[in-house]
Order: sequence, then C-alpha cells, then structure tokens
Amino acid sequence: MATLRVGELPVGPRDAITDVAGVRVGHATIADGAIQTGVTVIVPSGGNLFLEKVPAAACVLNGFGKTVGLMQVEELGTLETPIALTNTFSVGAVATALVRRAVRETSAIGRAMSTVNAVVGECNDGYLNDLHAFAVAPGHVNAACDDAAEEFSRGSVGAGRGMSCFGLKGAIGSASRRVPCENGAWTLGALVLANFGRIDQLILSGRRVGKTLATRIAGRRAEAERGSIIVVLATDAPVDARQLKRVAMRSAAGIARIGGNFGHGSGDIAIAFSTAHRIEDGAEPAIATRPLLAEPLLDPFFDATAEATEQAIVDALFSATTVTGRDGHTRYSLLDVAPDWRELLG
Amino acid sequence: MATLRVGELPVGPRDAITDVAGVRVGHATIADGAIQTGVTVIVPSGGNLFLEKVPAAACVLNGFGKTVGLMQVEELGTLETPIALTNTFSVGAVATALVRRAVRETSAIGRAMSTVNAVVGECNDGYLNDLHAFAVAPGHVNAACDDAAEEFSRGSVGAGRGMSCFGLKGAIGSASRRVPCENGAWTLGALVLANFGRIDQLILSGRRVGKTLATRIAGRRAEAERGSIIVVLATDAPVDARQLKRVAMRSAAGIARIGGNFGHGSGDIAIAFSTAHRIEDGAEPAIATRPLLAEPLLDPFFDATAEATEQAIVDALFSATTVTGRDGHTRYSLLDVAPDWRELLG
Amino acid sequence: MATLRVGELPVGPRDAITDVAGVRVGHATIADGAIQTGVTVIVPSGGNLFLEKVPAAACVLNGFGKTVGLMQVEELGTLETPIALTNTFSVGAVATALVRRAVRETSAIGRAMSTVNAVVGECNDGYLNDLHAFAVAPGHVNAACDDAAEEFSRGSVGAGRGMSCFGLKGAIGSASRRVPCENGAWTLGALVLANFGRIDQLILSGRRVGKTLATRIAGRRAEAERGSIIVVLATDAPVDARQLKRVAMRSAAGIARIGGNFGHGSGDIAIAFSTAHRIEDGAEPAIATRPLLAEPLLDPFFDATAEATEQAIVDALFSATTVTGRDGHTRYSLLDVAPDWRELLG
Amino acid sequence: MATLRVGELPVGPRDAITDVAGVRVGHATIADGAIQTGVTVIVPSGGNLFLEKVPAAACVLNGFGKTVGLMQVEELGTLETPIALTNTFSVGAVATALVRRAVRETSAIGRAMSTVNAVVGECNDGYLNDLHAFAVAPGHVNAACDDAAEEFSRGSVGAGRGMSCFGLKGAIGSASRRVPCENGAWTLGALVLANFGRIDQLILSGRRVGKTLATRIAGRRAEAERGSIIVVLATDAPVDARQLKRVAMRSAAGIARIGGNFGHGSGDIAIAFSTAHRIEDGAEPAIATRPLLAEPLLDPFFDATAEATEQAIVDALFSATTVTGRDGHTRYSLLDVAPDWRELLG
Repeated sequence: MATLRVGELPVGPRDAITDVAGVRVGHATIADGAIQTGVTVIVPSGGNLFLEKVPAAACVLNGFGKTVGLMQVEELGTLETPIALTNTFSVGAVATALVRRAVRETSAIGRAMSTVNAVVGECNDGYLNDLHAFAVAPGHVNAACDDAAEEFSRGSVGAGRGMSCFGLKGAIGSASRRVPCENGAWTLGALVLANFGRIDQLILSGRRVGKTLATRIAGRRAEAERGSIIVVLATDAPVDARQLKRVAMRSAAGIARIGGNFGHGSGDIAIAFSTAHRIEDGAEPAIATRPLLAEPLLDPFFDATAEATEQAIVDALFSATTVTGRDGHTRYSLLDVAPDWRELLG
Repeated sequence: MATLRVGELPVGPRDAITDVAGVRVGHATIADGAIQTGVTVIVPSGGNLFLEKVPAAACVLNGFGKTVGLMQVEELGTLETPIALTNTFSVGAVATALVRRAVRETSAIGRAMSTVNAVVGECNDGYLNDLHAFAVAPGHVNAACDDAAEEFSRGSVGAGRGMSCFGLKGAIGSASRRVPCENGAWTLGALVLANFGRIDQLILSGRRVGKTLATRIAGRRAEAERGSIIVVLATDAPVDARQLKRVAMRSAAGIARIGGNFGHGSGDIAIAFSTAHRIEDGAEPAIATRPLLAEPLLDPFFDATAEATEQAIVDALFSATTVTGRDGHTRYSLLDVAPDWRELLG
Repeated sequence: MATLRVGELPVGPRDAITDVAGVRVGHATIADGAIQTGVTVIVPSGGNLFLEKVPAAACVLNGFGKTVGLMQVEELGTLETPIALTNTFSVGAVATALVRRAVRETSAIGRAMSTVNAVVGECNDGYLNDLHAFAVAPGHVNAACDDAAEEFSRGSVGAGRGMSCFGLKGAIGSASRRVPCENGAWTLGALVLANFGRIDQLILSGRRVGKTLATRIAGRRAEAERGSIIVVLATDAPVDARQLKRVAMRSAAGIARIGGNFGHGSGDIAIAFSTAHRIEDGAEPAIATRPLLAEPLLDPFFDATAEATEQAIVDALFSATTVTGRDGHTRYSLLDVAPDWRELLG
Repeated sequence: MATLRVGELPVGPRDAITDVAGVRVGHATIADGAIQTGVTVIVPSGGNLFLEKVPAAACVLNGFGKTVGLMQVEELGTLETPIALTNTFSVGAVATALVRRAVRETSAIGRAMSTVNAVVGECNDGYLNDLHAFAVAPGHVNAACDDAAEEFSRGSVGAGRGMSCFGLKGAIGSASRRVPCENGAWTLGALVLANFGRIDQLILSGRRVGKTLATRIAGRRAEAERGSIIVVLATDAPVDARQLKRVAMRSAAGIARIGGNFGHGSGDIAIAFSTAHRIEDGAEPAIATRPLLAEPLLDPFFDATAEATEQAIVDALFSATTVTGRDGHTRYSLLDVAPDWRELLG
C-alpha cells in the first residue's frame, strides 16, 4: 500500500501498536447508509485486566471532549479494562458494555470487590454518521473485543468509520518505533482515532500541502470542523504512571507536526500504558517490587512518541477510504484527493 | 423532623440547594427487593441549558470514582446539562439519557452544533442494591427531570436510595447558607449524595460519637467500605469557573468535620455552578460582559461551603430511613440507631 | 508541658516528624525588636540528597502563596534538597542558599550534572516581623541546616518565630502517628508552619472554643488575617510520588478539624516524602526495582495524616510563646490567653 | 537582517511581543569572560501592576525547571509583577529584586496589603556561563526594568546571553501575529528564551536541516543538552485566565514544529497574559464587569500562538550571535554555521 514514512527512528515489524507484545486491537464497523460508525478496542494484554491491571496515565491536551474514565486513571495510575473508542454519543453505551464484560469475567466486581473503571475515548463523527441514531449497541463492543488480534485493519473501520481529518476522511491509524536498550530494544506503539485538523493546515513530511489540497476539495464540504483525536500509546518498557503521563504529553509534538493546533472544538487526549508489569487488585501483596526505568532514559521514548503519533496519523490518512454517509455527505480519502501525493511532496 | 444544626452562619428558608433561585431537584427512586437505587437530578436553572450554559467547575478530592463529564467542565468552565447522580454501574445509561434529552430539546446538537457534555456523578450502592441488575433506565432520568422542583425530598430517595454512610444509611441531603452583601445576601446551597465514612470515625457537632454507635451496629454489617461522596454546590453570586473551583475545594472542610478522611476507595467529588449569568453556546456575542466578584470576597463563600457541606451530610444522615435490600442487607438509619442522639451529643 | 492529645491512633516516641528514621529538623531564629523571623529546615535523610533523591509530592490546597520548587516535584516526583521554611519575602534568599549548599556538596551540579531544585515553603509573618527588612541571610539557612537533629525545638522558633495562627501566636509544631503492618509499624510524621485561621473559628478537640477566646483577645489585634500553612509529611513506608500526593491531600482533614476553611489569602500547601528508598540522579541504574505499597493499604496512612496534621497544629499552638515584634504588635500564645483550656474543653 | 518567515498569518508592525500595546521589554546583559548571562523583563503594561493586575495563566509543558510564581498564577489567575527571565541559579536573587521593586512602589505590600508574587522564568545557561558565580545581582533586574521599551534587542542579550538552542547559540526571540476581528484586529505576541533542542532534530520551515548542521558543528560541543524554553505570550484580546491557559498550551505546537520534543531535561513553560483589562487588588469594587471573548473565537488565537511561538524561536536562532564563555566553550550562531541557510531550505 502506498504510504509515507515520517521520521528517522527504527520501526517495529508491523509499524503498529501491536508491536508491543500482548497488545491486541479489534473493530466493529457499522456502515449502513446514514449510519457510518463503530467501535475499536485496544486490549493491553492477556489475562484478567481487572485482577491484574497495567500502569497507565493520560494527558488531556484539549479537554473539549467526552472521554470517560480518566479521573480514576489520574488518581490510581492503572487501567483495568480495554480502551474502547467510539463516537461521541455512544460513550455511555460502550462504557456500560465494558462494565458488563468485566462483571461477566469477574463476578465479584461491585460486590465483594470494587467497581470497575471503563475507559472510553470518543470523537464526533456526526458529519458522516447520524449521531442521533445512537447506533452503537453492546453487541458491537463484544464483537470488537472478540475481533481483537495482533493483526488488525486500519482506515475507515471501527470507530474510525465515520471520522474526518483535515477535511479528508479520518480513520484509525497506527505505528510503532523502537528504543534501543542494553538487551535489545523497547517498543513504543501508537494508535490514533484521527478526526481533527483543518485542510489548509495539513503538513505532510514538513510540506504545507494543505492549501493545495483545499482547492481540490472546495465545495465538497460545508460544515465547520468539530474534530478531536484520541491517541493510545503502549510500551513494554518498565515505566510507571507518572512517567507514562510524561510520555503521553509528547504525542502533542506528533499532532503539531502534521498541522494540528489543538483547535477549540477538538478534544485531544492521549492515554498511555505499559505492559512491563501487572498491578494486582486489592491489598495483596502488601509490598510489590516494581521495575522502574531511570528518568533520563525517557528521552528516546519522548522522541518515539512524537514520531509514532505523527506516523499513526499519516497512516490513518493513507489507510482511509472515501465514505459517503448521512445526508449524502462524503469525505474523500487522501489518496483519492491526492493520488499524486509523491509529487506534491517534491 | 428531628435534626441537628451545625455551624453558625445564616441559613436559607429551605436550608436546601434550591434556596438558590432557579435551582430545582428531582428524583426517581427504585425500591424493589434487591433493587434499591435511583436517580437524582439537579437542574441549575430554567431555559435551555445547552444554548445558555452556566459557569461551573469541579474539584476532585479523591479520584477513585466514575463521574463523567468533568474533563470538559475543567476545560471550558461551563455546565450544559443538569447534573445527574446515580449508582456506579448506571453512569453510562444516565449520561446517554441526558444526551438524548438535550438532543430532543435542541436537535442541532451533534449536527449543526457541537455535541453535548453530560455530567453524571455516582456512588457505589452495591451493599444494598444489586448493581449487576443495571436497573436504571432512561425513563428514570426523564422521571427525575420531570420531578424537579424547588421543594424536594431528602433521605433514602433517588440516587440516595441504596447508599451507605458511616456504616449507617446514606442518603441525599441538602443545606444552604447565606452570605451578606451590600444589597442583601447571596446564597450558597449544597446537595450531597452521601455514601462515605467509617462508623467509628463519625463526628457530630464535634463529638466523636462513632465508637459508641459502632458498638450498636456491631454484627449488622460485614463488608468493607467502598464509599464516595458527590457534593453539588450552587450559588447566585457572580463567580466564574476559576472561582467556583476554589469554592468547590472547600467542601473538603465539611467532609472532614463530620469524620471523613477521603478514604482510598471513596470517590470524593465536588461540582459547583453559579446562576448569576448565562454563557451562550457559540460565537455570539463575540464579547460578553460578565459580572465578577472581587476575589477577597470569596472568603465568606468558603466558610459557607464548609458549613453547608457538613450540614448537608448531617441532613442526609438524619433524613435517611432504614432500608433492606440485596441479600437481606440492611442499613439502619442514624435515627434508628441513635434515637438518643441529643443525649449522645451531651 | 501541658498539651492536648487529639485522635486515637498510636503515637511515635517523640510525637514528631523525626520519629521517621533519618529525618532531622533544625532552626535559625532571628528575634530582635521588629525582626521576628527565621528559617526551619527539614532534612529527609542522611547522605547526598541530590545524588540520591527521595520520592516526594505536593498537594496545593490553596495556591495563594509563594512556595518554590513544587513544579519540578510534580513533574519528577523527587526531592533533592532539604525542605526549608521561612517568611514570604525571604523565599528567594533561602532558595539561593540551598542551591549554594548543594553546589558546595556536589560541584558538578550546573556543570556536568543538572541544576538543583530547592524547595522552600513560606508564610507571611508580617504582623510581628518587619518583612521589609529582608532579614534572612544565607547564614541563617546554613545555621538551620547545621542545627538539624532528631530532637528539635517547637514553638516560636525558626520560621515559626513571627507567625500567627487563629489570631494567637503561630509556630512550628510536629506530631507522628504509627501505622501497624506485618513486621511492626510504619511511621507517618508531620511538621507544620502554622500561620492560618480566624480566632472565632478555632476548634479544639471538636469544641468550638473560638468565640470565647475571641472575646479575650478583643482589641489586641487590628489587622486582617493573611495566613497560610505549610504541612511537611514524612513516612518510612514504601510509597511513590503518586501515592504521596494522595497522602499529602489528606492533611486537609487535619486543617479543617481545627477550624481552617482554606481562606482566600491562606497559601495552604502540603509536601510529602518517603524515606523508604533513594532514587539515583542520572541514568544509572537503567532499571531499578522499587518497593511499592499496595494501594488499599494507604487508608491508615490517610487517617494518620489527618490526625498527625491536626495534632501538629495543636502542638504549634500549645508550644508557642507570646511574642512582641514590629510596631509593638503582640501575638499572645494560646496558653497565655487560655491557661484554663482544660476547663474550656469541658 | 536576514531572517526566515514561517507561517501565513498577518504579522504585527514589529513582529514582536511589543506589538501588543503597552507591553515593554528590557534587558541587562553580563558578558565578561566566564560570565555570560543576564536578565530580561517583560512588562505587561504601564501603571502599578500590583494595584491593577492583569489576567494571566501558565501551561507547564515539561516541569523539569525552577520557574517561580506559577502556583499563585494558577490559583488567582493574575500577574502582579513584570515577568523576569534569567539563568537557573539566579531565580532567587531576581525574584527577591522584583519583590523589593514592588515594595518600593507600594509600601503597603506585606503590611496593610498582601505580599507580592514575583514571576521568574529560567533556563540553564551553564555551558557558556559560570552558574557557580551567581553573577546576577539586584542591580541587573533594576537595569533591565529601566531598559524596558517597545523597541528592544533580540539575540544574545539579557537572559539569552548564555543560552544554547539546538546545539547552536540560543537567545531571546520575539514575534507577533494578528487576529482579525470586527473592529480591526487583536494582536498575539510571543517572546521566547530559547535554550532547548538537539541539533539533529532542528526543523526549519518544515525541512529537517538538523543532520546537515550537526555535521558542521561536530566536535564543537561536548556536553549533553539540558535545555528549556520559556515562552511569554501577550494579547490585547479580552480573555480570562482559563482562556489564557488554553492559549498558552498551544505554544507546544510552535515548539514541536521547529523540532522540539519536550526533552526530559527541558523545562518548557508558557506564560500568557492579557492587557484588555486590569484587576484591582483587594475587595473594591465588589463586582466588576469584565469583557470576555466567546470561546469559539479562541481558534485564531491558538493558530497565532503556534505560529508566533515558532517564529519567535526562529527569530532567536537568527538574531543570535556566536558567544564564547566559560572554559572557552563556544556556541556558534545559526548564521555563522549556516550562512547558506536559504540554499539548505531549497
């Protein structure tokens, strides 16, 4: 597939978040006339995630959004469900479905044990998708979870089905970068639900191609941007929640380099987790010993985050396919609008 | 009704959050065997709250909780739906119901206009209520909204139905305090969903009555506390979101004075709003003139918040009635356990 | 010495922050007519604190204050100098003195190594002390550091010399509480620089004695309160920065129980550190293994923090001695104003 | 002077922060052998800034730094002294000097009135400057304040004297962008103290020129980067502290586009203020009416911030002159290293 490689760091074998061992991604896509939406789940690791949580943190770059679950992530520094992505109006339904799944898996939740904190990110796909249909049902969450695998689709699928990005078709994209260390390399993977940006501000590989593309889609779109981007970051390096928050913040560099300015209406959220160890629910063991990376060694992870985020957005744009949805609205894919992208980049 | 007055500040006519003009409160209560739960809504003011928002802010005292909507409140400083309270597992259903209500009222939401941010607070009522039943339905949200009025019930109703507090029956409570000003007085109102605290730590009017009460209910309870408190604060004073965040923080003093230490498992959240002016959705007018209270004049509001929060929790305890629910679990009301409370306080 | 014991938890041998092994406290006091001020230092542990840092965090309860160094503590979760306390106008001089001390100890700081982050808390002692004299000099910081010991003075000494608290003489106070664990007990120690509160709001052991005391000092004071409190918390339990931030927040309960409402003008700051392990400066070792307490086991530390903070403030009030300073201003000690305090408490 | 224009928005007459009416900038430069440092002050407006404050906010992009004064800015949303910039070890001395200046101007500070909150940003200029000399004295702050004017120098002056940026000579840079509105245009101005970045990551106008430049200065530098950037943003638009915080965050986009990834050791801080209205110290008037921009109209300010920040960093690099300092260390200016920069950019 034609694509554009950005940056200079070593890339994982799939150039995907699933290059972090154990991470899986699945989708449920709803594409039916005015309904163009779906659910994407990122499963951090195998096993029972509630009983054995992973360290996690979030960075809210722009909080105009409806993502749920981040307050507890901030307080406790753990993730205890898969991360689900969907459209804005379906957050409640998807969160409830994640809670139900956790309860089915661990019936003591909400009884002998604490309740469970579902993390659901969202973007507004209302240009292509009829939000008012509230089309996402619990079954879609289950289907996406069942679909979760190391190999997964990108583009106009899952939560990315109805999204828009830089006035073009938005989508799910992913990427990974490798951070050399003594015994090999750590991996930093990114997955984005890309639904942000103004066409005239698009930058590809440093080139301000936006104005040129804008003329090509003039008249094709009518509504103002009400974007958002959710960035999910994963690593196998032994970092804790405080460090993951620092990592998550660096996704801002990737968003900026492709032309994002964190617009008022764009809920820009990054969520990061580590698979390096598990944190048991409850009070046992009283004291665990956790491996922890020396702080100055975070620098290559910051670089990797910036580059993987930018690459994942590029991947979303290049993987996207043109979609027509609500009221005949159409978002054209980058490759449909700019099949000559190599020439544009000079 | 027998009750205990705490503090020394002047009290509003109802000693309730609805002493702030325009504020209304409504409940839907589900009390049916193992299902003991419900929904409570606080409506900040009349009119279309999405089109004309109110300034708002939140203070997360302890983030081990699943409240939704606070990220956007933090970013934009506005509240655009009623605040709903319910049990932990019903947050998603209640948030979706609030979104649907807003869409019904303003069909451009999610189409020509932005999406809407529902604010839903929760506590875990799993001791009395079968959380796994996911019993709260959209109809309960609508019923609670329809029920909203200046005069409202307190005690084991609405979201308070299944709650526990200091090992006793938790509940909805409310209070208000007055802040004199040049032309009369401002009002600061509080409403709490009280579901926190350990019985041995209960303090009433400064007296550590907890240990005495603990002996009275020994054997009556078996499960560890997994509490929480949601404090909703309202004022008619002209304060902005930054100032409201400062106000909200002072609810911590009220929680502490009655014996709360913000336990690990207790999601303690305060949300404050002002009814002094409305903030239009969108870009019109380009520049509005907002009245804003001088910062040093916040001090009496801080005092009022501390006292009204403590009083509202006292009100919850004194208004509560004994409830038996899931698996025959019973929470006894303070008045049932300590009909001699006046003597206990010496 | 006459004092009041609050709460019910087990107390360390000194009932002081130095019950946490390795912690030392020292003072330099300046008491000369209109100059009534000083410096207090809390040294977390022996050895080179820059090369081997301790985990630390802060909680800003009310940010109307000039404490320096907290931004980096928030980002990196470490403390690399002693914590110094002083008056508001001397923060700059004291911070510079701490930097100079660190450079003398480790000459590579600011050259081959990073710069050093001094943490200095402050309160406004301007009622008794002539702030405009900028009387604190580097020598006072050195003297306080040299004075640091496990046994230390409390009361109107060091940074506490010129402070006011509840309209009475403020001071340095300290306390400790023990948290039982499998192999004995952890210790949670608190030290406060107490300079906050309104006399009519003072609560001792739950009794609202403030109004009575207010009548006794009527006419003795003229200026409005511009208080503050700095709470320093230490523990030997293996907790990380995120957990320490949670611990620090619970000092709010102690402040509230003695009558504080976090007044507008009161910069209320809590700083917490652990002595359980050291964090090496730099990138070696690449991966350390850190002991970490299970999250639910924080609850008794929260209780201990609330109680130790309240006790430390009580200790400050009871240890304080009457001081006359600038312009003949006098702050009377609690024991001078209420030698009959036992009777007042009934 | 040869320079590079980035972006596409309209530019103010000076392309400087002082295009915002009333803002002035001044420097004191110390250039004497091993001492290569200084002070830069940004004065928000005329009049007594303590008595009539300006709305302000900060965004901490990376908190590994020693900037002072931000805690109170966060709490109260106001700026009450000029913003001073200097080297890391001189923060204390400069803060004290600002306090002394405020006290001279308003003698009631710290007596009848509150104390004053000095805001001082810093970067580590230790490669060129002997930090251990603590060379900045109060007189330098006074000189910089006296020097403050609408026309001011850029480059290796003031606090920028000893700075490094992308392995090249760092410096003070500035820029401005215009935001059209109904009655003309608002101005958004930026000033940076640029001391961050790795040479191989430098991006100019989207071109990754860093690796080429790196080969040209190979062997010229030996020490690892311990950077930082302070971004000061000013606008005449009527925005409040919450909105200014949102504006400040968008400086991240400018930093990222020139190649910054917010490195671990780089304290990256943005501080923004508005000159649109003044906020009186104290409780009078009880209620002020403040003009406030509609939230969606912030978008062009976000774009302007991203672009002005990038331009200001470019300006710093292009204005810088080669400097030799401590131990014969030399940082070469961009123009010395790349006089052929136009060709490099193709």
